Amino acid sequence: MGKRIGIGLLGLGTVGAGVAKILNSPEGRNPLLNNLELVEVAVRDLDRLRPIDLPRSLLTTSPEKVIENPKVQVVVEVLGGIEPARTLILKAIASGKSVVTANKAVIARHGQEIATAASAAGVYVLIEAAVGGGIPIIEPLKQSLGGNKIRKVSGIINGTTNYILSRMAKEGIAYKEVLKVAQDLGYAEADPAADVEGLDAADKIAILSGLAFGGSIDRSEIPTKGITNLEKRDVDYAKELGYVVKLLATAEHLNSKTEGNNFLPLALQVQPTLIPLEHPLAGVNGVNNAILIEGDPIGEVMFYGPGAGSGPTASAVVADILNIAGIQQVESHTGELDPLLAASSWRKCSLVKPDAIIQRNYIRFNAINKPGVIGLIGTHFGNRDVSIQSIVQFDTSDSVAEIVVITHQVSQGQMKDALNAITKSPEIKGVSAHYGCL
Amino acid sequence: MGKRIGIGLLGLGTVGAGVAKILNSPEGRNPLLNNLELVEVAVRDLDRLRPIDLPRSLLTTSPEKVIENPKVQVVVEVLGGIEPARTLILKAIASGKSVVTANKAVIARHGQEIATAASAAGVYVLIEAAVGGGIPIIEPLKQSLGGNKIRKVSGIINGTTNYILSRMAKEGIAYKEVLKVAQDLGYAEADPAADVEGLDAADKIAILSGLAFGGSIDRSEIPTKGITNLEKRDVDYAKELGYVVKLLATAEHLNSKTEGNNFLPLALQVQPTLIPLEHPLAGVNGVNNAILIEGDPIGEVMFYGPGAGSGPTASAVVADILNIAGIQQVESHTGELDPLLAASSWRKCSLVKPDAIIQRNYIRFNAINKPGVIGLIGTHFGNRDVSIQSIVQFDTSDSVAEIVVITHQVSQGQMKDALNAITKSPEIKGVSAHYGCL
Repeated sequence: MGKRIGIGLLGLGTVGAGVAKILNSPEGRNPLLNNLELVEVAVRDLDRLRPIDLPRSLLTTSPEKVIENPKVQVVVEVLGGIEPARTLILKAIASGKSVVTANKAVIARHGQEIATAASAAGVYVLIEAAVGGGIPIIEPLKQSLGGNKIRKVSGIINGTTNYILSRMAKEGIAYKEVLKVAQDLGYAEADPAADVEGLDAADKIAILSGLAFGGSIDRSEIPTKGITNLEKRDVDYAKELGYVVKLLATAEHLNSKTEGNNFLPLALQVQPTLIPLEHPLAGVNGVNNAILIEGDPIGEVMFYGPGAGSGPTASAVVADILNIAGIQQVESHTGELDPLLAASSWRKCSLVKPDAIIQRNYIRFNAINKPGVIGLIGTHFGNRDVSIQSIVQFDTSDSVAEIVVITHQVSQGQMKDALNAITKSPEIKGVSAHYGCL
Repeated sequence: MGKRIGIGLLGLGTVGAGVAKILNSPEGRNPLLNNLELVEVAVRDLDRLRPIDLPRSLLTTSPEKVIENPKVQVVVEVLGGIEPARTLILKAIASGKSVVTANKAVIARHGQEIATAASAAGVYVLIEAAVGGGIPIIEPLKQSLGGNKIRKVSGIINGTTNYILSRMAKEGIAYKEVLKVAQDLGYAEADPAADVEGLDAADKIAILSGLAFGGSIDRSEIPTKGITNLEKRDVDYAKELGYVVKLLATAEHLNSKTEGNNFLPLALQVQPTLIPLEHPLAGVNGVNNAILIEGDPIGEVMFYGPGAGSGPTASAVVADILNIAGIQQVESHTGELDPLLAASSWRKCSLVKPDAIIQRNYIRFNAINKPGVIGLIGTHFGNRDVSIQSIVQFDTSDSVAEIVVITHQVSQGQMKDALNAITKSPEIKGVSAHYGCL
C-alpha cells in the first residue's frame, strides 16, 4: 500500500469542498488517492451549511492547529486573498510541511519569499491550481517542456473577461451590458476590477513566466490594459478584418544585446489583442482558458480547458497533492528534493521597458472625413519605419471618419513617435483605440 | 550540482539526433540537463553522415554494449519497429536500467510484458514520445489528471491522415491526389498503410486508454476504419452540414450493468468522424495532433501541438529523461518507485463488443430518385428506435439520389439492424458510407 499521507485543508469554500469530495471518493481515480487521508480542516464558522458534509471532528476554526497537527504532512491552502494566506503558507513551510495552494495573488506577489523558505526547509510548494483552473499547465512547464528553450508564452487566462468578450463578439452586445449579465450569472464579481482591468491575468502571466523562463518576475512592472475601454465597434471592426478580440497575456524572450551573464530580457504585457480566426487561440470561448507555449525544439503546444470552477480547480489541487504523495513513496534519507517538482529559479529575468516591446498593433483613429487622410497616416508611419499591413476606413459620417490601421511588428517606442506625429495633424482628431494584434 | 545521470542512446535517426542535440546544448533549458551526460550511442553504421556530429568515441554498433555500459543509467530506445526494440528494452530493464522509448508499436503490443518486467526490476519505462509527438499528454494523464474519473479520451493522433484530411477539406482535392503530395513531402510513407488504415492511431489510443483508465487494452480488439475509402463527396457533404471530417480515435467508459468487480467496460474505436465546426477538435489542421480528455470533476481539457517531427519528439523524450533524473536526485535506499511515474495497471478493462458501441452516425445512402424515399428511410429508422437528427438529399441526378442521414446516439447493433432492413427495400441501392459523428 505504501506510505499514508495526511492532508490538512485550510478553507472549505467551493474549491476546498471540491478537494474534500475527491479525497473522500477515491474509487475510479488514481489508486494513490487511497494513501491520502483528510486529517483536519480549518473553517471560519463551524456551523455554516457547506456543499460537503464532513464529520464535525475534522473541523476546527484554527488554521494554526491544522498546520501543527502531527498527522498532517501536506497543507492545502484554499483560502484566497493575500493575508492570512501568506503567513499560513510560511508557517506550514517552517513546520517542515509541503504546501499546495491555488492562491495566484500570493504566489505572484510573494512567490520568491515562499520559494526561498521552501527551499531552505526542504519542502515542496505546488501551485497547479493558481493558473488555468483545471488545465495542467504548471506541471508541463516544470517537467514535460524542460528540454526546451521557451520563446513565448501567450494565454487567455482570465475566464470572466473571456466570457464577456465571447458574448460581445457573438451577439454584438456592448461591454457594460454583458458585464451585468456576467455578474448576474456569477461569472463576474460585484467589484469586477481584478478581472476586467487585467490584474488577475497579470498575476498569472507573472507566475507562468517565472516557470517558463526560470527567473522571478516583478509583477508590478507588467504593462496591463484591461477591457473596460474596449468598444463594441472595435470588436466589430476586428471581426470584419478576420480577427477576434481576446484579453491576451504574453511573455516573450526578446533577443537583445544586453543578454548574457544570466540576464534574460523579457517582454511581458496584458492587453486586448486581435487574434486571426485561424489561430489556435481564436476558438477559445466562454469561461475557457488556453495557454500557448512556443519553444525550441517543440514548436507550438497549446493547453485548453476550464479556467475556473470548483471541480476543475479541485482537480488541479489534487494533482499537486498526488505529486507530493508520489514522491514521498520514494524513501529519502537525505532531504533532497526532486528539482523538477521543486522548480526553483535558476537565472535572472528582467522586463524590458514598455517602449522596447515589439508587436503588431491595431489602431483606430478618429479623423476628419476628407480626401488624403489615409495618405497622411500612411506617410507618417512610413517616415518612421512603421510598416503597415492594412488601412481601412469604417463607419464614415459626413464629418467624421474612423480609420483602422493594422501594423506589422514594431517597437512601442517607434509606435509612440509615429502616433505623436500623426495626432499633431489637424485632420486627425485622436487615437480612439490602441491594442495588440497577433 | 546533484547526481550525474548517464544516458545511453539506441538509435541516431531523426529523433535520436534531436535528443543528442538537446543533451549537448543545455544552455537556456532546464538546469537539470546539466546533470545529464550522453555516454554511448548505438548506430547501425559508424560511417554514415548524420544530422549531428558526435565524437567517434561515443558511437558503437552494439546496442548491448550501450545497455551494459556501467556509466549508463537510462537507456533511450529510438530505433522504432518491434524487434530488436522489444528485446533491447527488456534487456535494459533486466540490467536494472530505466528506459525511455518513443516506440508506440512496441508499447501498444508488448506494454504489459514490459511494465511487468519494469515493476519487478524496480525501474521506470517512460513513453511520453509514443503518443502525440511533442504534446505533453502521457505525463498529464499519469499525474495532473490523477484526481479525475476519466469518462472519455478522443484524439486526432495521426498527423499523416490529418494532413491529408485537412487538404481534402480546404482545397476539395480527392484522397489519392493528396496522398501523393503527402508522400512527396515526406508526410506519408511509401507504404502508407499503418497511417491511412488507422493502425497507428489504434496503437496510440490503446496506450492512452491504458493510462487514462488504469488497465491494459487488447490492441487487436479495437474496431479500426481508416480513411482509404473516404470520398471527397463525404468531406463536401459534411462541410455543407457544418462539420469537418477527422480520423478520430476514441475511448469511452460505458456505464454498464456488467461493471463492478474491478471490470471496466470501454468502447474503443478509430474511424473517420464528423466533428462540428465549433468543437475544439475541429480546428486541428495539418500534421498537428490534439487529445481531448473528459473527466469528473475536471470537465474537458485539450492538449494540442505538433504530432511528429524530430524536434517535438525529442522534446518529449528529453522530458522523460528529466523526470527520471529528477527523481533520482531523491536518494532512495528502498528501491521504491514513484507510483505516479511508474503508472502500473490497477484494474481490469475490457472492450465491449462493437455492436455495443454507442455513437452518432453519418450514413450516406445511394437510392433511386423517386418521391417517398426519404420517408421510407425515416420510417425504418423510427421503427427500430433510431432517432434522426437530419436527412438531406444531395447531388441528385435523374435516376440516382444521394441521401445523407445523421443520427442521434444509438448502439451499432441497432444501427446494423436498421441498415439491414433499409437496404432490403428495392428503392435503396446501398450504404455508400458509414462514419461516426460527434
